[in-house]
Amino acid sequence: MDTESRDTLVKLIREQRIAAIGTLRGGFPEVSMVPVVAEPDGSAFYFHASALAHHSQNIVREPRVSLMLSEPDDWGRDPRTLARIGIRGEARALPREGTAYERVKAMYLARFPESAAHFSLGDFALYRVEPVAARYVAGFGRIFNLSAADIMAAIT
Amino acid sequence: MDTESRDTLVKLIREQRIAAIGTLRGGFPEVSMVPVVAEPDGSAFYFHASALAHHSQNIVREPRVSLMLSEPDDWGRDPRTLARIGIRGEARALPREGTAYERVKAMYLARFPESAAHFSLGDFALYRVEPVAARYVAGFGRIFNLSAADIMAAIT
Repeated sequence: MDTESRDTLVKLIREQRIAAIGTLRGGFPEVSMVPVVAEPDGSAFYFHASALAHHSQNIVREPRVSLMLSEPDDWGRDPRTLARIGIRGEARALPREGTAYERVKAMYLARFPESAAHFSLGDFALYRVEPVAARYVAGFGRIFNLSAADIMAAIT
Repeated sequence: MDTESRDTLVKLIREQRIAAIGTLRGGFPEVSMVPVVAEPDGSAFYFHASALAHHSQNIVREPRVSLMLSEPDDWGRDPRTLARIGIRGEARALPREGTAYERVKAMYLARFPESAAHFSLGDFALYRVEPVAARYVAGFGRIFNLSAADIMAAIT
Protein backbone atom coordinates (compact mmCIF):
# COMPACT_ATOMS: atom_id res chain seq x y z
CA MET A 1 0.00 0.00 0.00
CA ASP A 2 1.26 3.50 -0.83
CA THR A 3 1.98 5.93 2.03
CA GLU A 4 -0.96 8.23 1.27
CA SER A 5 -3.44 5.33 1.29
CA ARG A 6 -1.94 4.05 4.53
CA ASP A 7 -2.20 7.44 6.23
CA THR A 8 -5.82 7.73 5.10
CA LEU A 9 -6.57 4.27 6.50
CA VAL A 10 -5.07 5.11 9.88
CA LYS A 11 -7.12 8.31 10.05
CA LEU A 12 -10.31 6.41 9.13
CA ILE A 13 -9.80 3.83 11.85
CA ARG A 14 -8.73 6.33 14.51
CA GLU A 15 -11.16 9.16 13.81
CA GLN A 16 -14.46 7.80 12.53
CA ARG A 17 -16.88 7.43 15.44
CA ILE A 18 -19.72 5.67 13.65
CA ALA A 19 -19.91 2.55 11.54
CA ALA A 20 -22.55 1.10 9.26
CA ILE A 21 -23.04 -2.45 10.50
CA GLY A 22 -24.32 -5.16 8.20
CA THR A 23 -26.04 -8.11 9.84
CA LEU A 24 -28.34 -10.88 8.65
CA ARG A 25 -32.07 -10.80 9.44
CA GLY A 26 -34.01 -13.75 8.08
CA GLY A 27 -31.37 -14.16 5.38
CA PHE A 28 -31.70 -10.49 4.36
CA PRO A 29 -28.74 -8.15 4.82
CA GLU A 30 -29.70 -5.36 7.19
CA VAL A 31 -27.67 -2.18 7.68
CA SER A 32 -27.85 -0.06 10.81
CA MET A 33 -25.52 2.31 12.65
CA VAL A 34 -23.33 1.77 15.68
CA PRO A 35 -20.94 4.10 17.51
CA VAL A 36 -17.49 2.47 17.39
CA VAL A 37 -14.05 2.65 18.86
CA ALA A 38 -11.02 0.76 17.56
CA GLU A 39 -8.26 -0.95 19.47
CA PRO A 40 -5.19 1.32 19.07
CA ASP A 41 -3.37 -1.41 17.12
CA GLY A 42 -6.35 -2.04 14.81
CA SER A 43 -6.83 -5.60 16.05
CA ALA A 44 -10.48 -5.15 17.08
CA PHE A 45 -13.46 -2.80 16.92
CA TYR A 46 -16.03 -2.33 19.68
CA PHE A 47 -19.58 -1.09 19.98
CA HIS A 48 -22.11 -0.92 22.80
CA ALA A 49 -25.68 -1.84 22.00
CA SER A 50 -29.01 -2.66 23.54
CA ALA A 51 -30.37 -6.17 23.16
CA LEU A 52 -33.43 -4.49 21.63
CA ALA A 53 -31.47 -3.16 18.65
CA HIS A 54 -32.04 -5.13 15.47
CA HIS A 55 -28.29 -5.69 15.03
CA SER A 56 -28.02 -7.20 18.53
CA GLN A 57 -30.98 -9.50 17.84
CA ASN A 58 -29.44 -10.51 14.51
CA ILE A 59 -26.00 -11.22 15.99
CA VAL A 60 -27.45 -13.74 18.44
CA ARG A 61 -28.54 -15.87 15.48
CA GLU A 62 -25.65 -15.09 13.13
CA PRO A 63 -22.48 -13.46 14.48
CA ARG A 64 -21.00 -12.69 11.04
CA VAL A 65 -21.08 -8.95 10.45
CA SER A 66 -19.52 -6.24 8.36
CA LEU A 67 -18.54 -2.84 9.71
CA MET A 68 -18.00 0.04 7.32
CA LEU A 69 -16.13 3.16 8.36
CA SER A 70 -16.37 6.00 5.87
CA GLU A 71 -15.29 9.59 5.55
CA PRO A 72 -18.50 11.63 5.83
CA ASP A 73 -19.88 13.31 2.74
CA ASP A 74 -19.03 17.01 2.57
CA TRP A 75 -21.42 17.79 -0.33
CA GLY A 76 -18.43 19.02 -2.30
CA ARG A 77 -16.14 16.20 -3.40
CA ASP A 78 -17.19 13.48 -5.77
CA PRO A 79 -18.51 10.98 -3.19
CA ARG A 80 -16.74 8.13 -4.98
CA THR A 81 -13.47 9.61 -3.71
CA LEU A 82 -14.51 9.28 -0.04
CA ALA A 83 -12.23 6.83 1.75
CA ARG A 84 -14.00 3.87 3.35
CA ILE A 85 -13.27 0.40 4.66
CA GLY A 86 -15.66 -2.53 4.98
CA ILE A 87 -14.41 -4.93 7.64
CA ARG A 88 -15.78 -8.45 7.90
CA GLY A 89 -15.64 -10.42 11.15
CA GLU A 90 -17.73 -11.99 13.89
CA ALA A 91 -19.32 -9.93 16.64
CA ARG A 92 -19.05 -11.39 20.15
CA ALA A 93 -20.38 -9.88 23.37
CA LEU A 94 -17.54 -9.28 25.85
CA PRO A 95 -18.15 -11.08 29.15
CA ARG A 96 -18.77 -8.52 31.91
CA GLU A 97 -16.55 -10.40 34.34
CA GLY A 98 -13.41 -10.27 32.22
CA THR A 99 -10.56 -7.80 32.60
CA ALA A 100 -10.95 -6.82 28.94
CA TYR A 101 -14.44 -5.49 29.70
CA GLU A 102 -13.31 -2.71 32.04
CA ARG A 103 -10.48 -1.64 29.75
CA VAL A 104 -12.73 -1.47 26.69
CA LYS A 105 -15.51 0.24 28.64
CA ALA A 106 -13.04 2.97 29.65
CA MET A 107 -11.87 3.34 26.05
CA TYR A 108 -15.47 3.51 24.82
CA LEU A 109 -16.52 6.06 27.45
CA ALA A 110 -13.50 8.25 26.72
CA ARG A 111 -14.99 8.67 23.24
CA PHE A 112 -18.70 8.54 24.18
CA PRO A 113 -19.05 9.92 27.75
CA GLU A 114 -22.81 10.38 27.18
CA SER A 115 -23.17 6.58 27.11
CA ALA A 116 -22.11 6.13 30.75
CA ALA A 117 -25.66 5.59 32.01
CA HIS A 118 -26.20 2.72 29.59
CA PHE A 119 -23.45 0.66 31.17
CA SER A 120 -25.61 0.17 34.26
CA LEU A 121 -28.46 -1.26 32.18
CA GLY A 122 -28.68 -5.03 32.05
CA ASP A 123 -29.74 -5.30 28.44
CA PHE A 124 -26.71 -3.51 26.97
CA ALA A 125 -23.57 -5.35 25.88
CA LEU A 126 -20.14 -4.42 24.57
CA TYR A 127 -19.48 -6.25 21.31
CA ARG A 128 -16.05 -7.02 19.91
CA VAL A 129 -15.42 -7.51 16.20
CA GLU A 130 -12.07 -8.94 15.23
CA PRO A 131 -11.38 -8.36 11.52
CA VAL A 132 -11.15 -11.42 9.29
CA ALA A 133 -10.79 -9.53 6.02
CA ALA A 134 -11.46 -6.05 4.71
CA ARG A 135 -12.08 -4.18 1.48
CA TYR A 136 -10.50 -0.75 1.61
CA VAL A 137 -11.21 2.01 -0.89
CA ALA A 138 -8.68 4.80 -0.40
CA GLY A 139 -10.17 6.87 -3.22
CA PHE A 140 -11.59 6.38 -6.67
CA GLY A 141 -10.12 3.19 -8.10
CA ARG A 142 -7.61 2.77 -5.26
CA ILE A 143 -8.94 -0.48 -3.83
CA PHE A 144 -7.19 -2.91 -1.51
CA ASN A 145 -8.18 -6.29 -0.11
CA LEU A 146 -6.70 -6.40 3.38
CA SER A 147 -6.13 -9.10 5.97
CA ALA A 148 -6.27 -8.44 9.70
CA ALA A 149 -2.46 -8.43 9.64
CA ASP A 150 -2.46 -5.82 6.87
CA ILE A 151 -4.67 -3.52 8.97
CA MET A 152 -2.43 -3.91 12.01
CA ALA A 153 0.73 -3.38 9.94
CA ALA A 154 -0.73 -0.16 8.51
CA ILE A 155 -1.65 1.29 11.90
CA THR A 156 1.53 0.50 13.80
CA MET B 1 -45.23 9.44 13.01
CA ASP B 2 -44.82 12.86 14.66
CA THR B 3 -44.21 15.91 12.44
CA GLU B 4 -40.59 16.40 13.52
CA SER B 5 -39.70 12.77 12.74
CA ARG B 6 -41.45 13.05 9.39
CA ASP B 7 -39.59 16.24 8.45
CA THR B 8 -36.29 14.62 9.42
CA LEU B 9 -37.11 11.59 7.26
CA VAL B 10 -37.90 13.74 4.24
CA LYS B 11 -34.60 15.62 4.67
CA LEU B 12 -32.68 12.32 4.98
CA ILE B 13 -34.16 10.92 1.78
CA ARG B 14 -33.84 14.15 -0.21
CA GLU B 15 -30.44 15.35 0.97
CA GLN B 16 -28.17 12.39 1.74
CA ARG B 17 -26.03 11.61 -1.31
CA ILE B 18 -24.40 8.41 -0.09
CA ALA B 19 -25.76 5.17 1.27
CA ALA B 20 -24.17 2.24 3.03
CA ILE B 21 -25.28 -0.80 1.03
CA GLY B 22 -25.49 -4.23 2.62
CA THR B 23 -25.20 -7.20 0.27
CA LEU B 24 -24.47 -10.89 0.73
CA ARG B 25 -21.08 -12.33 -0.23
CA GLY B 26 -20.73 -16.05 0.36
CA GLY B 27 -23.40 -15.81 3.03
CA PHE B 28 -21.52 -13.01 4.81
CA PRO B 29 -23.08 -9.56 5.03
CA GLU B 30 -20.83 -7.04 3.27
CA VAL B 31 -21.19 -3.27 3.59
CA SER B 32 -19.91 -0.84 1.00
CA MET B 33 -20.80 2.67 -0.16
CA VAL B 34 -22.84 3.86 -3.12
CA PRO B 35 -23.82 7.35 -4.26
CA VAL B 36 -27.63 7.48 -4.31
CA VAL B 37 -30.54 9.50 -5.52
CA ALA B 38 -34.16 8.95 -4.51
CA GLU B 39 -37.28 9.13 -6.61
CA PRO B 40 -39.02 12.40 -5.54
CA ASP B 41 -41.97 10.43 -4.15
CA GLY B 42 -39.72 8.05 -2.18
CA SER B 43 -40.85 5.02 -4.19
CA ALA B 44 -37.33 3.98 -5.30
CA PHE B 45 -33.63 4.63 -4.80
CA TYR B 46 -30.98 4.48 -7.53
CA PHE B 47 -27.24 4.01 -7.72
CA HIS B 48 -24.77 3.63 -10.57
CA ALA B 49 -22.05 1.05 -10.18
CA SER B 50 -19.37 -0.83 -12.05
CA ALA B 51 -19.76 -4.57 -12.53
CA LEU B 52 -16.36 -4.83 -10.82
CA ALA B 53 -17.67 -3.45 -7.53
CA HIS B 54 -18.22 -6.11 -4.88
CA HIS B 55 -21.83 -4.99 -4.37
CA SER B 56 -22.57 -5.41 -8.09
CA GLN B 57 -21.01 -8.88 -8.07
CA ASN B 58 -23.01 -9.78 -4.97
CA ILE B 59 -26.32 -8.52 -6.39
CA VAL B 60 -26.03 -10.83 -9.40
CA ARG B 61 -26.19 -13.81 -7.04
CA GLU B 62 -28.53 -12.33 -4.43
CA PRO B 63 -30.56 -9.19 -5.21
CA ARG B 64 -31.69 -8.62 -1.62
CA VAL B 65 -29.96 -5.54 -0.24
CA SER B 66 -30.25 -2.95 2.48
CA LEU B 67 -29.50 0.75 1.95
CA MET B 68 -28.81 2.95 4.94
CA LEU B 69 -29.02 6.71 4.70
CA SER B 70 -27.65 8.52 7.73
CA GLU B 71 -27.01 12.04 8.89
CA PRO B 72 -23.22 12.41 8.90
CA ASP B 73 -21.38 12.56 12.20
CA ASP B 74 -20.45 16.11 13.21
CA TRP B 75 -18.14 15.07 16.09
CA GLY B 76 -20.34 17.05 18.43
CA ARG B 77 -23.72 15.42 19.01
CA ASP B 78 -24.15 12.08 20.67
CA PRO B 79 -23.97 9.89 17.55
CA ARG B 80 -26.93 7.82 18.75
CA THR B 81 -29.11 10.86 18.02
CA LEU B 82 -28.14 10.90 14.32
CA ALA B 83 -31.17 10.20 12.16
CA ARG B 84 -30.86 7.19 9.86
CA ILE B 85 -32.99 4.81 7.86
CA GLY B 86 -32.18 1.27 6.78
CA ILE B 87 -34.24 0.33 3.73
CA ARG B 88 -34.61 -3.27 2.63
CA GLY B 89 -35.43 -4.21 -0.94
CA GLU B 90 -34.14 -5.91 -4.07
CA ALA B 91 -31.65 -4.25 -6.39
CA ARG B 92 -32.36 -4.62 -10.10
CA ALA B 93 -30.33 -3.20 -12.98
CA LEU B 94 -32.45 -0.87 -15.12
CA PRO B 95 -32.57 -1.99 -18.76
CA ARG B 96 -30.71 0.56 -20.93
CA GLU B 97 -33.42 0.47 -23.58
CA GLY B 98 -36.24 1.52 -21.32
CA THR B 99 -37.65 5.04 -20.99
CA ALA B 100 -37.05 4.91 -17.24
CA TYR B 101 -33.29 4.66 -17.88
CA GLU B 102 -32.93 8.08 -19.50
CA ARG B 103 -35.08 9.79 -16.89
CA VAL B 104 -33.16 8.24 -13.98
CA LYS B 105 -29.81 8.89 -15.66
CA ALA B 106 -30.72 12.59 -15.92
CA MET B 107 -31.77 12.66 -12.26
CA TYR B 108 -28.56 10.91 -11.22
CA LEU B 109 -26.34 13.21 -13.28
CA ALA B 110 -28.07 16.31 -11.93
CA ARG B 111 -26.75 15.24 -8.54
CA PHE B 112 -23.45 13.65 -9.68
CA PRO B 113 -22.32 15.46 -12.86
CA GLU B 114 -18.80 14.05 -12.44
CA SER B 115 -20.20 10.58 -13.20
CA ALA B 116 -21.15 11.46 -16.79
CA ALA B 117 -18.17 9.67 -18.33
CA HIS B 118 -19.11 6.42 -16.62
CA PHE B 119 -22.41 6.23 -18.46
CA SER B 120 -20.56 5.49 -21.68
CA LEU B 121 -18.77 2.51 -20.12
CA GLY B 122 -20.30 -0.87 -20.84
CA ASP B 123 -19.66 -2.38 -17.42
CA PHE B 124 -21.63 0.20 -15.44
CA ALA B 125 -25.30 -0.19 -14.62
CA LEU B 126 -28.01 1.87 -12.95
CA TYR B 127 -29.60 -0.11 -10.13
CA ARG B 128 -33.06 0.46 -8.76
CA VAL B 129 -34.05 -0.48 -5.22
CA GLU B 130 -37.74 -0.42 -4.40
CA PRO B 131 -38.29 -0.41 -0.63
CA VAL B 132 -39.99 -3.45 0.89
CA ALA B 133 -39.63 -2.36 4.50
CA ALA B 134 -37.53 0.06 6.51
CA ARG B 135 -36.30 0.69 10.02
CA TYR B 136 -36.14 4.41 10.73
CA VAL B 137 -34.39 5.92 13.73
CA ALA B 138 -35.37 9.58 14.00
CA GLY B 139 -33.25 10.08 17.12
CA PHE B 140 -32.37 8.27 20.29
CA GLY B 141 -35.21 5.87 21.07
CA ARG B 142 -37.49 7.26 18.33
CA ILE B 143 -37.70 4.15 16.16
CA PHE B 144 -40.24 3.35 13.47
CA ASN B 145 -40.82 0.29 11.32
CA LEU B 146 -42.00 1.62 7.98
CA SER B 147 -43.57 0.10 4.91
CA ALA B 148 -42.95 1.42 1.39
CA ALA B 149 -46.35 3.13 1.65
CA ASP B 150 -45.32 4.80 4.93
CA ILE B 151 -42.20 6.25 3.26
CA MET B 152 -44.22 7.58 0.33
CA ALA B 153 -46.88 9.01 2.63
CA ALA B 154 -44.21 10.83 4.64
CA ILE B 155 -42.55 12.39 1.62
CA THR B 156 -45.65 13.56 -0.24
